[in-house]
Amino acid sequence: MDAADELAWCRDEFRLPEGIVYLDGNSLGALPRRTPERLRRLVEEEWGRGLIRSWNTEGWVDLALRVGAAIAPLIGAGGDEVVVADSTSVNLFKVLAAALRLRRGRREIVTDADNFPTDLYVAQGVADLLGGVEVRAIPRARIEEALDEHVAVLMLSHVDFRTGELLDAAALTEAAHRAGALALWDLAHSAGAVPVRLDDWGVDLAVGCGYKYLNGGPGAPAFAFVARRLQSDLRQPVWGWFGHRAPFDFSPRYLPADGIARLQSGTPPVLGLAALECGVEAVARAGIEPLRLKSVNLTELFVALLDQEFGGRGMEVVSPRDARRRGSQVSIRHAEGYAITQALIARGVIPDFRAPDLIRFGFAPAYLRHVDVFDAVAALAEVVWTEAWRRPEFLRRARVT
Amino acid sequence: MDAADELAWCRDEFRLPEGIVYLDGNSLGALPRRTPERLRRLVEEEWGRGLIRSWNTEGWVDLALRVGAAIAPLIGAGGDEVVVADSTSVNLFKVLAAALRLRRGRREIVTDADNFPTDLYVAQGVADLLGGVEVRAIPRARIEEALDEHVAVLMLSHVDFRTGELLDAAALTEAAHRAGALALWDLAHSAGAVPVRLDDWGVDLAVGCGYKYLNGGPGAPAFAFVARRLQSDLRQPVWGWFGHRAPFDFSPRYLPADGIARLQSGTPPVLGLAALECGVEAVARAGIEPLRLKSVNLTELFVALLDQEFGGRGMEVVSPRDARRRGSQVSIRHAEGYAITQALIARGVIPDFRAPDLIRFGFAPAYLRHVDVFDAVAALAEVVWTEAWRRPEFLRRARVT
Repeated sequence: MDAADELAWCRDEFRLPEGIVYLDGNSLGALPRRTPERLRRLVEEEWGRGLIRSWNTEGWVDLALRVGAAIAPLIGAGGDEVVVADSTSVNLFKVLAAALRLRRGRREIVTDADNFPTDLYVAQGVADLLGGVEVRAIPRARIEEALDEHVAVLMLSHVDFRTGELLDAAALTEAAHRAGALALWDLAHSAGAVPVRLDDWGVDLAVGCGYKYLNGGPGAPAFAFVARRLQSDLRQPVWGWFGHRAPFDFSPRYLPADGIARLQSGTPPVLGLAALECGVEAVARAGIEPLRLKSVNLTELFVALLDQEFGGRGMEVVSPRDARRRGSQVSIRHAEGYAITQALIARGVIPDFRAPDLIRFGFAPAYLRHVDVFDAVAALAEVVWTEAWRRPEFLRRARVT
Repeated sequence: MDAADELAWCRDEFRLPEGIVYLDGNSLGALPRRTPERLRRLVEEEWGRGLIRSWNTEGWVDLALRVGAAIAPLIGAGGDEVVVADSTSVNLFKVLAAALRLRRGRREIVTDADNFPTDLYVAQGVADLLGGVEVRAIPRARIEEALDEHVAVLMLSHVDFRTGELLDAAALTEAAHRAGALALWDLAHSAGAVPVRLDDWGVDLAVGCGYKYLNGGPGAPAFAFVARRLQSDLRQPVWGWFGHRAPFDFSPRYLPADGIARLQSGTPPVLGLAALECGVEAVARAGIEPLRLKSVNLTELFVALLDQEFGGRGMEVVSPRDARRRGSQVSIRHAEGYAITQALIARGVIPDFRAPDLIRFGFAPAYLRHVDVFDAVAALAEVVWTEAWRRPEFLRRARVT
């Protein structure tokens, strides 16, 4: 299978440690091959030698827009609809507050009760700050019926961080629009692994993470999308000089920049942006459709091998079995999930654990091989069948998040 | 003077390009000697080899608090009162919104009409978002009389970014408190160069920049301070998982962390934090009192040489002549300031220009020598007396911000 893999070359775009099967690229992407040299040059030459001049001579001043434009094709957006700025949480705060202003008179935020917690927290924070705003966290199956004339914005994650379930963003966006609400998507677990077609789907607002499938490094800056048709009316609340129409005029009154640049607030994080640019390039070179094809192959293989090895005996696959409804991740439930995860890590197979009982296996298609999937299931079988997870040396290990 | 300089050793903590006199450390600090290797190790080893495990094994998870604690002694704060997060603009948004909640019933933000524009923008954005809040930007000399029972918070910059004027933070904080208002200081142009005594002065809230005198690199993350006595009541509005009491419980309801950690929102920017840690270490090793002593010597020397060379003939010093009222910067006004700045840069002397007519010379005491001050004035004299700034090759140059 690896010999026939048309994306096999892409693994060489990354540096992976020997002897490790890394199945947590959905949490922190691997190191792109070009990143160390890019950062060395940025730090030693652009910063160290160019100093302040590099803001112009090296184009730091536009880097956030440039990296945004590089992300755009991966998420089906125009190059003028995406910018990199701040963290996912901060961007979500900005676009959520802006969405409420675009739908004045409507005071509900509808979201998924199983959304990523920080998304729920951001919504709770916006509601707490503004007053008179209600956050309705609804069981997934009943979201559509919750959409009515009171709803300002439907805020959802495209892929469930626990189960890997892929939501039908096109249909849910349409449902939001039928109710007159805006659709806001968090692409943290899809950008770079699952095809996203924001413009085709008519999505209004989106945010996403730079450090998962985009391989921007730990705590990489995040991105934000605003549909072109909304940009001139969008008023995000964190007004800083990089969102100003003319930052270097130092005028005392805020005037938002035209277009997506108004999503920016403070000075852009140049180190993080440069690293993210390398990560995005590595993925963009592969192309999102081939990446998805390979991702489906990897997760299908993983599920088939789990069935073959365990056949339901104590190892429940909680991810959708239909690959069309699954992101690039497969999660299993086991009462001893934490100890099993530790035992796997001790064997060089790295998934992650989400309390109380989920083991998440992420399959970053840009750098994983089919043999990694085989090795992961073999290690899992060894751990489970020999009950290695019961041994005290694994139970004593410090918790790995 | 350099031979007698007790901080001369500190220049070797930085890498500065040959043949450059860098007088813009107030805008972007120089590259610390240790930063390239620290980032190489972070990227190649901690990220590349350790992958997700490094969040715990390398302490990334606490890095924002650790770097905050390292900054604390430079600004007269406790190690549990400072955290690094986001940008200065985003932090200012958070603490300003929080200040309004701590003084419910009071709806005015008083600030300096000459404050750094992004600070004014953030305040305007908060007022625009919340409604019923007034931002009063007052001429500096009349700030104290504007403080009354309507004022929730007095928001000021410690050092004027144009003139380098150092405000009397102790007296203004006391005046704010007399009126029942909170005092919020932006330390962007003082942290690392001017002694700050937040706790002694009774300051309530502060923010500051990582990429100026703290040498964290372009777009470095910023810091925020909340006085210990206010932390448990402080409700900042951008709720994200890193500000949660138990981020890895993934519980659906936001519960703020105890202490300063609640100022955090999203995943901390590890690359930027590691670089900032190196920058802070270089400055902390020197100590803030010796740095201030040298900074005063450098700016006094610069002003004396300007007087000697120009004696008021067309070269107006707009910074305070009393060193006690001056930060680590001297600004001069000249109708041809832009062209003169370009001509200086072409000679390897790098100040910066602020429209319409100010040339700012920043004196980062950690790495500048007295001979740099002499060389800068010599270059300035050559440019001005030979009218080199009139030559078209300088006027044609692209604008350097």
